[in-house]
Amino acid sequence: MLYFNCDYMEGAHPAILKRLMETNMEHMLGYGSDSYCESAKEKIRRECNCPEADIFFMVGGTQTNATVIRSYLKPFEGVIAAQTGHINVHEAGAIEAGGHKVLALPHKEGKINAHQLREYLESFRKDESNSHMVQPGMVYISHPTEYGTLYTAEELRDLKAVCCAYELPLFLDGARLGYGLMAQNTDVTMETIAKCCDAFYIGGTKVGALFGEAAVFPHGAPKGFFTLMKQQGAVLAKGRLLGLQFDTLFTDGLYYEISRYAIEIAMKLKRILVESGCPLYIDSPTNQQFVVLDADRKKALADEVSYEVWQELEDGGAVVRFATSWATKEEDIWKLKRILE
Amino acid sequence: MLYFNCDYMEGAHPAILKRLMETNMEHMLGYGSDSYCESAKEKIRRECNCPEADIFFMVGGTQTNATVIRSYLKPFEGVIAAQTGHINVHEAGAIEAGGHKVLALPHKEGKINAHQLREYLESFRKDESNSHMVQPGMVYISHPTEYGTLYTAEELRDLKAVCCAYELPLFLDGARLGYGLMAQNTDVTMETIAKCCDAFYIGGTKVGALFGEAAVFPHGAPKGFFTLMKQQGAVLAKGRLLGLQFDTLFTDGLYYEISRYAIEIAMKLKRILVESGCPLYIDSPTNQQFVVLDADRKKALADEVSYEVWQELEDGGAVVRFATSWATKEEDIWKLKRILE
Amino acid sequence: MLYFNCDYMEGAHPAILKRLMETNMEHMLGYGSDSYCESAKEKIRRECNCPEADIFFMVGGTQTNATVIRSYLKPFEGVIAAQTGHINVHEAGAIEAGGHKVLALPHKEGKINAHQLREYLESFRKDESNSHMVQPGMVYISHPTEYGTLYTAEELRDLKAVCCAYELPLFLDGARLGYGLMAQNTDVTMETIAKCCDAFYIGGTKVGALFGEAAVFPHGAPKGFFTLMKQQGAVLAKGRLLGLQFDTLFTDGLYYEISRYAIEIAMKLKRILVESGCPLYIDSPTNQQFVVLDADRKKALADEVSYEVWQELEDGGAVVRFATSWATKEEDIWKLKRILE
Amino acid sequence: MLYFNCDYMEGAHPAILKRLMETNMEHMLGYGSDSYCESAKEKIRRECNCPEADIFFMVGGTQTNATVIRSYLKPFEGVIAAQTGHINVHEAGAIEAGGHKVLALPHKEGKINAHQLREYLESFRKDESNSHMVQPGMVYISHPTEYGTLYTAEELRDLKAVCCAYELPLFLDGARLGYGLMAQNTDVTMETIAKCCDAFYIGGTKVGALFGEAAVFPHGAPKGFFTLMKQQGAVLAKGRLLGLQFDTLFTDGLYYEISRYAIEIAMKLKRILVESGCPLYIDSPTNQQFVVLDADRKKALADEVSYEVWQELEDGGAVVRFATSWATKEEDIWKLKRILE
Repeated sequence: MLYFNCDYMEGAHPAILKRLMETNMEHMLGYGSDSYCESAKEKIRRECNCPEADIFFMVGGTQTNATVIRSYLKPFEGVIAAQTGHINVHEAGAIEAGGHKVLALPHKEGKINAHQLREYLESFRKDESNSHMVQPGMVYISHPTEYGTLYTAEELRDLKAVCCAYELPLFLDGARLGYGLMAQNTDVTMETIAKCCDAFYIGGTKVGALFGEAAVFPHGAPKGFFTLMKQQGAVLAKGRLLGLQFDTLFTDGLYYEISRYAIEIAMKLKRILVESGCPLYIDSPTNQQFVVLDADRKKALADEVSYEVWQELEDGGAVVRFATSWATKEEDIWKLKRILE
Repeated sequence: MLYFNCDYMEGAHPAILKRLMETNMEHMLGYGSDSYCESAKEKIRRECNCPEADIFFMVGGTQTNATVIRSYLKPFEGVIAAQTGHINVHEAGAIEAGGHKVLALPHKEGKINAHQLREYLESFRKDESNSHMVQPGMVYISHPTEYGTLYTAEELRDLKAVCCAYELPLFLDGARLGYGLMAQNTDVTMETIAKCCDAFYIGGTKVGALFGEAAVFPHGAPKGFFTLMKQQGAVLAKGRLLGLQFDTLFTDGLYYEISRYAIEIAMKLKRILVESGCPLYIDSPTNQQFVVLDADRKKALADEVSYEVWQELEDGGAVVRFATSWATKEEDIWKLKRILE
Repeated sequence: MLYFNCDYMEGAHPAILKRLMETNMEHMLGYGSDSYCESAKEKIRRECNCPEADIFFMVGGTQTNATVIRSYLKPFEGVIAAQTGHINVHEAGAIEAGGHKVLALPHKEGKINAHQLREYLESFRKDESNSHMVQPGMVYISHPTEYGTLYTAEELRDLKAVCCAYELPLFLDGARLGYGLMAQNTDVTMETIAKCCDAFYIGGTKVGALFGEAAVFPHGAPKGFFTLMKQQGAVLAKGRLLGLQFDTLFTDGLYYEISRYAIEIAMKLKRILVESGCPLYIDSPTNQQFVVLDADRKKALADEVSYEVWQELEDGGAVVRFATSWATKEEDIWKLKRILE
Repeated sequence: MLYFNCDYMEGAHPAILKRLMETNMEHMLGYGSDSYCESAKEKIRRECNCPEADIFFMVGGTQTNATVIRSYLKPFEGVIAAQTGHINVHEAGAIEAGGHKVLALPHKEGKINAHQLREYLESFRKDESNSHMVQPGMVYISHPTEYGTLYTAEELRDLKAVCCAYELPLFLDGARLGYGLMAQNTDVTMETIAKCCDAFYIGGTKVGALFGEAAVFPHGAPKGFFTLMKQQGAVLAKGRLLGLQFDTLFTDGLYYEISRYAIEIAMKLKRILVESGCPLYIDSPTNQQFVVLDADRKKALADEVSYEVWQELEDGGAVVRFATSWATKEEDIWKLKRILE
């Protein structure tokens, strides 16, 4: 069986496992106050060119989103997001469980833009009954989005400008950030993101780590963030595990290198799919590829290839997602090619 | 100045004030355990033909909605509502503050229907990632809706049937229930509502009372409802005030009588508006009338008539709402007619 | 039957009812934006000698406590209170429902003091694991307390000094404030309270109003307080009712006058109880009197006098509370005297 | 430096690391639906002799406590716990963040007992104002407790009996369960716990795993538990990591074996401490040893031994905690002996 279901089907990059083995019996203080965390933070600060950044490591994406968002919002504020945003659909109401509404805006291939954001905020401002409504309190975007698409540097700067004008923090969910940064033709770098966002996270779970996300606050985190993490159950006792993984990922550019590899494979995969007659559903530059499989091709792949169904179609076909990762083997996509031919 | 802004601009129906005066110095136990509350509940049970109904009196609509909805939902469940539903727009996130997502469906003139509800639930059921999503836990509708429109008895029965099939309680927000029940050509009675809903409330604030809503649970309330009310700050110390008002409203049909009066005035008002050239925005059978005022008419009314602007139009006109109530004076609508001529 | 159960067994002071009648048919905007609210706020600002104070009217004590406390705390902060504090015992977990822990301190006759507060805060500060604990975020006291006792001006200033040193807002629950201010020998005035507290509320429900509490923020309320009120279901549609009541209470000193009357009656009642052989459980200077009734006296009062049992004793007696109010008739305490003789 | 600070200073037992290496590149579905999780669950069910048990793996203790407790409580219910309970002190208000009060009872060496529990519940039941109070909704205990102490099988059965009588679920926090089960002279087995508790968790983080806790529901978990986990950010994407670890720990009795080792070392450590003149603060039968260090001994250990200070004493000494674990080297305690001599 060939597996293209998602980007978290394997364990960790071997370099990470190696260091886990090597450091296993070292004595370290708990809760992230160890030297590996310190070292990893220092490396990430350098990547972001933000020597003053606060950085916190958490285990997973939902808890990172929920904790960061909660740390910024007053009880009567909500977070603006694309209707398709992960926090609005696939986090089981984690934001609402924290007391906050997700203020969902229409999306375009998973993205929102500065123009619509400004229109929404302006119209809210003018609404005479707005004191009876959830107040917009911050903006959430993901990069890459749930559709594999990317913002341009200009789009990020424009969003930032609107956020500044309305005094709203901008938060970027980077669960797959590596795959976004290494996409071909993107002009967005880690530094761009650190400049445009008040908070963002660098995804590890889907990019080489066993687990872990690094929340970065370029201009400092809201007061009490660690205690909030603790309250949310988001502090790992053996924080060293997170520190060590991110330290490894940001040593000698490993994070970028493995992301670039996944992108190269994804681009080959895209070509294979298109050339074998599967129309693109979205033209994604990242490691998630969305295509339409007709009923015949679905049958052909049934016993040999595993992927994720995005949407069943009435004619028996489906919109499906193929994902690559740092762990995808190149030979697997050539096998897929042969099956599709 | 003529006031048509809303249906809560005056105090209470004189019959209520009279009884408040008469009973003012009586000694009553607090928190709704007095004889007036008992009497009012008994009368409402008779109106609903539900001798076993549990009834609780609260002060306002937002707190009634929030408390009833919270009493039914598990922490990972949400409440389905029309996108325009009051709980989704104008209650400042009270539902989310209780930890629950409002699962908003597209509306038609403020209503949702059984067909779309079933489709939504079916599609949720089939979604392979639904365990990562907020679970639909109950259904909220309002009658009349925020647009003044009404469900038919058949529509309510159909919604009820879908709710039963998916084991979801159906809750009806009756902030303006009297005006709905007394609309011309409606086939929905208090008994229809008690049969179709697991919970609903009879609005007092907008229908003759100083304040107060009566939450009715035809088949009994969720366990611990009173304590939940207390927690939500929704227990009035002098509960007698609520009991007395609803006892008065449901003595000799006062609630219906004053509602019918408001409807009659509203229908005359509608005719006046239409005949004077204001197109209906929605053809509402209840006490809220939505029309389009052009720029000239807006100017003509400016110093003499007060109403609520629903939406500014680009040509200088606006969609506006005129509301009548038990307290609207018939002479005021003739004055309005003269101004419009 | 003579009723001494509590201070909210009757309706409102006749002066309030009179004005409700007179103004019943006036047209007023909703949600507290009417002229009566404005007038009442202005009068309260004068009483407090705080021309810049923000004032909001709410219906009841639990919702006022919950909303004010929520408006100050970050999600990981808790509120310090006496173990016997109303928010810690008799509000059904309203503070926790808002996400916050009540950090309960031992009390002395319902009070906490500056010394113990400082010790608690200092010990918290020194605790090496304090980042894993709920952070103290504000201080709640009640005046009078649940035991009818009072702070002195010096005690309030000392609490304030500690709060300032640790940057904690001080909030005073004044559900029975009038009875506290009019106690004999107190040196605490409305102005003292306004000087020492960041927020407090003036209780109306138990002091002459049908219902209503006035939350006062001498130096301004936290941003967005109105929307938070809305979210908590604490905005009354016909806000005029609250404005009018407080306007009446603060016209010509009515609030103080009726409070003073209740205190005079309470002091006579205390003398009667003591002289008839009922030991004081607490020597309260306010309208709540706590005494020990032995089994014989309990029997003697059984059919003629109603009061609240505070604690059953093993010998068949009980600690009980007798409450007076603006509405207590002097003749009733003489009747009580005769029954006890 | 010798480290006795806590039981989570090292990585994982080598057997776990070995299997992580071996299985690293296997393709597994996410979120705990993999074969390692299945296998681990099956093994735990056998240990508990509960073939029908529901089992869920989470990453850490605070999130396990918060999620399990939230899954049982209605919004107006609280959880009973010892005042010293971890959820009441060191989880930053995670329970309150979920909306629930911790109803703290006085403890004896970290334990509560059936008698006091029954008294509390009975007194609550009789309190006439109990509908205004947080309702007791479940009972939380820890085993071993925060003081290293243990319940006997009879004490657990007695607690269970009271819980049954009042229809309250009993939940046992087993963050250090292995060390409790392997204590000398205990008559509590995994099966005892499974019989007495409605829910409990088997701690991995402190007993050989990199991280992970196994929540066990002997008679089935509350409906929707997985979605609640997701909402709490408590679902690990690569759930296989948790499955594999617990599968390893429950293969060939590894969990018990490493726990027994830690206990043996702890007992030797205790003897060394006592014989060198350090009085026991509590006589703990488990891996945490609490002793009083006087000022001289503190100085003597200062540069060579690391431990946790529990409480500074006025004479310059301190109550301190020494913890052993599966990873403690026997030679280290002999070194400690030499330093103390």
